[in-house]
Amino acid sequence: MNQRYVIIGGSAAGPKVASKIRRLDQNAEIVIVQKSKNLSMASCGYPYFVGGVFDNPTLLVATPTGAPRNPGFFSKVKGITAYVETEATAIDRENKRISIKNLVSGEVQEIPYDKLAVTTGAEPIKPPIEGINLDGIKTLHSLEDAVALKEMVKNDGSKKKAVVVGGGLIGIETCEALQLAGVQNTVVEMLDQVLPFLDWEMAKLVENHIKSKGVEVLTQDGVKKFHGKDGHIVSVELQSGKIIECDMAVVSIGVKPRTKLAGDCGIVIGTKGGIQVNRFMQTNDPDIYAAGDCVEVTNLITHEKQLWPMGDAANLQGRVAAQNMVYGNIEEYEGFIGTGICKVFDFTAGSTGLSEKMAQREGYENIIKVTHAAPDKPGFMGAKPVIMKLLAVKTTGKFLGLQAVGTGDVAKRLTTAAMALHGRMCISHLTNLDLPYAPPFSPAIDNFITAIHVLENKWRNYMVGISCVELKEKMDQGEQPFLLDVRGEDEYKVLRLGIGETLIPLGKLRTSLDLLPQDKKTEIVTYCKISLRGYEAAIFLNSQGYENVKVLEGGIVAWPYPHE
Amino acid sequence: MNQRYVIIGGSAAGPKVASKIRRLDQNAEIVIVQKSKNLSMASCGYPYFVGGVFDNPTLLVATPTGAPRNPGFFSKVKGITAYVETEATAIDRENKRISIKNLVSGEVQEIPYDKLAVTTGAEPIKPPIEGINLDGIKTLHSLEDAVALKEMVKNDGSKKKAVVVGGGLIGIETCEALQLAGVQNTVVEMLDQVLPFLDWEMAKLVENHIKSKGVEVLTQDGVKKFHGKDGHIVSVELQSGKIIECDMAVVSIGVKPRTKLAGDCGIVIGTKGGIQVNRFMQTNDPDIYAAGDCVEVTNLITHEKQLWPMGDAANLQGRVAAQNMVYGNIEEYEGFIGTGICKVFDFTAGSTGLSEKMAQREGYENIIKVTHAAPDKPGFMGAKPVIMKLLAVKTTGKFLGLQAVGTGDVAKRLTTAAMALHGRMCISHLTNLDLPYAPPFSPAIDNFITAIHVLENKWRNYMVGISCVELKEKMDQGEQPFLLDVRGEDEYKVLRLGIGETLIPLGKLRTSLDLLPQDKKTEIVTYCKISLRGYEAAIFLNSQGYENVKVLEGGIVAWPYPHE
Repeated sequence: MNQRYVIIGGSAAGPKVASKIRRLDQNAEIVIVQKSKNLSMASCGYPYFVGGVFDNPTLLVATPTGAPRNPGFFSKVKGITAYVETEATAIDRENKRISIKNLVSGEVQEIPYDKLAVTTGAEPIKPPIEGINLDGIKTLHSLEDAVALKEMVKNDGSKKKAVVVGGGLIGIETCEALQLAGVQNTVVEMLDQVLPFLDWEMAKLVENHIKSKGVEVLTQDGVKKFHGKDGHIVSVELQSGKIIECDMAVVSIGVKPRTKLAGDCGIVIGTKGGIQVNRFMQTNDPDIYAAGDCVEVTNLITHEKQLWPMGDAANLQGRVAAQNMVYGNIEEYEGFIGTGICKVFDFTAGSTGLSEKMAQREGYENIIKVTHAAPDKPGFMGAKPVIMKLLAVKTTGKFLGLQAVGTGDVAKRLTTAAMALHGRMCISHLTNLDLPYAPPFSPAIDNFITAIHVLENKWRNYMVGISCVELKEKMDQGEQPFLLDVRGEDEYKVLRLGIGETLIPLGKLRTSLDLLPQDKKTEIVTYCKISLRGYEAAIFLNSQGYENVKVLEGGIVAWPYPHE
Repeated sequence: MNQRYVIIGGSAAGPKVASKIRRLDQNAEIVIVQKSKNLSMASCGYPYFVGGVFDNPTLLVATPTGAPRNPGFFSKVKGITAYVETEATAIDRENKRISIKNLVSGEVQEIPYDKLAVTTGAEPIKPPIEGINLDGIKTLHSLEDAVALKEMVKNDGSKKKAVVVGGGLIGIETCEALQLAGVQNTVVEMLDQVLPFLDWEMAKLVENHIKSKGVEVLTQDGVKKFHGKDGHIVSVELQSGKIIECDMAVVSIGVKPRTKLAGDCGIVIGTKGGIQVNRFMQTNDPDIYAAGDCVEVTNLITHEKQLWPMGDAANLQGRVAAQNMVYGNIEEYEGFIGTGICKVFDFTAGSTGLSEKMAQREGYENIIKVTHAAPDKPGFMGAKPVIMKLLAVKTTGKFLGLQAVGTGDVAKRLTTAAMALHGRMCISHLTNLDLPYAPPFSPAIDNFITAIHVLENKWRNYMVGISCVELKEKMDQGEQPFLLDVRGEDEYKVLRLGIGETLIPLGKLRTSLDLLPQDKKTEIVTYCKISLRGYEAAIFLNSQGYENVKVLEGGIVAWPYPHE
């Protein structure tokens, strides 16, 4: 008897489960039940379609060679039956069958299964705000959403305006897409920052960049009401009272797992709201597996269960589930470490592992951290800056996470850090990494390694650092350390912090001791563009008997506040 | 009493030792003795200077902010004395002093030390070939070399020709530089391939790309004689008898460590010809440390000592040596894993860990390997191919190495693999990596992870692969497997291997069984552009009872032989 595999959900995890099962069992009967019209959509690509990177929506459901992944493709190429525009309405675990309903014809039928995969994904959260159902208010979650939004932003000569509600990853990608499509837009975010996976000061650098592209960003504000005229949105009223006129709004305040179908038949839903699975992606019913945005999985840094609705995780989980459905539980999905990345105009911004905020939330009380800014290759090769913030456990040196932003190659440094986390490495494992070095690709010592060196320097008390946030707080409280900018005069002329600093170029410092405070207990904060010269200056001042010298970490490049 | 630190050698490791010592001990007396006129040269940047990426040689000795690192800079900014054009002629270990000689004035003096660092680097190998001292024959090892070579290739209207002797990393970078500078050049290499850190078939893909740029590449041939006229080179005569007319030649057949000074005073030289150091970069004399191209260090994969003359390693070793010189042996340099990368026109080529050839040489007899080709991001984002070859130990799944070439983002995948090697990871650690995914940066499952999946598929016998080399050997011996190309007809029209294959597009395979050999024991080799469809075809054929089906790994993209 051929095994019958049924998969409910056909976006990312589902088709992966089905395709992998086919590769492992050519005789199996495999059925995908998909509510939408489309299958196997590259949903992370929607913003790039809307933004005009490409215009053919078929590419979002095509194989690398351009074949659209429709039911005909699944049938002909893979021998998989895919029912689209078909909803699974119930799971009968006792009799091992599911009820499905064709949403076009209304036809209802039952399908038996030997093993079932629930890959029902997530759905966008639509808050109960007055006016939310007006025309012109969209989410960017389905291919239909993407096509509709692209139609709305189409250049018809009028200058359109949009409001993006939510400054998370999807919100920021959407904001870029709209702006690139010629739509003037405003991002509204309840929190005090965009991209909540970053710490405030890192997110602020991204926000500054977004604003430099003409986007308005409003933080610490939320939507009170959508105003309409003839059923179509005309403005957004914020909790602050501000009213923004607009032609459209995109709501991107997050997603929630679709678990009703599973929950209704007694499959256990976890405390975070996702389907509970073991490391084999198996639910409490041994014949039912689940994968993708609808499950909760283990954060390998904190060892807590968490929702992690990411396209790459869904695919990996699907591959694991399929193997276990066919062969029994032979393959583990251990969890994720929390890696995310997005392109934001000329910037790339991302994080892996824990941010400082997350670490605090998780109860870490003994953290060592550093902010580091540096060009991503030698100057003569056209270097671009990467600003990084790293965290480790102070007692053990265990590496905890990296955030990185900038116009340089951020993705490679996040990759390095993600692998360090997967390898559970400590500072001492990371100081002498043998990474691929040649001038077109990195400085002789890669930025990530240098950042580890600085972290080690702080850890060993070779260096005392102060973050931009700490310095700002100090000064806001009325303290005024002696601020020492050690760049060249030419650099100072072009750009300066303008916070009461004194300029003494590093090369003149040894002969300019008279310009320094004579009280050796004075708090001195040194810096330069990236605070490498700032570090050398601090060491020299220490040798001159100054007892309270700190380096402004990341220097001017990492300074998120206004400057002159 | 202030400590006296003396550093012999001022290229890469030396200045790093000196600068780091200064950061750790502001009162120390620090002296660098450098034979050349220049200090702290970015020698890996020479090819890009010659090739015209930039024209100001000062950038090769400048800090990130543009300050030239000359004796004045070291003195003023760092408080370090640097003697240039000065040779260290002897080390007197008993009295802890060295003799130095100013090469301009001839003046001789002795300098005492408490701790000494030997960072004398390496020198280019100049083979004893007739005519090697003719004008116009250069190496590309020093800044003087680079400036002289740039002068030679300067566009004066004449069409110049060059011969590059040696197809290793420096040779290939030089070849690109010369070609970009408008010089027609020929690379001559004794081995049967360029870039010896790659396996033959991977190197061949790079060679094909180099040739497509108009460079002539001659392998398995060496230089017999340089012919000159009026003391200047006019042609190169090869061992094959071929004569190549040229205006210049660059000899880049490797480097050897400069160890005479150290050896003369009884410092132990290792079996590989480099100065022997422990993991603290300390020689057999506890007061003498060594770092950079002149030492031999541990290969962390094979645990053998090896020469590893790389700029990044030199810097890292210098940082370690400095800390140990100041504080006693507190910091370890454990070794390297063998990571190298180079840009070759539009290609990037690199390797980390072991190649198949190296693994064989090291005695590995039970290896699992795979070749994998795939686009480096989704097609709609402008994907470019990356071709990878991975190795692991068959019994344990321990990951051993990655080679990668192509126009896509090779550096990031090498970084991932290098970190996997540093973390001593196995296949099972690598199947579900949480890497930074978004469409501008990678496919939903990153190429490296997919390659690991294919390796796992082979490991578990889900898939039987055959490499291009194995297939070619088979056919050269007269065997003719049934070759099944499963791409689309449109693709086949544009490009095909032309080795007697049959085309049956994957979508038609289920209904085209009559076109296949009827003997189920026939050896069948399936493939497509990258052999993903080839893999699906193979699985289907297995299910139809075919017992000897293999997938051509990497498909057409990884095929290094001529095709139609």
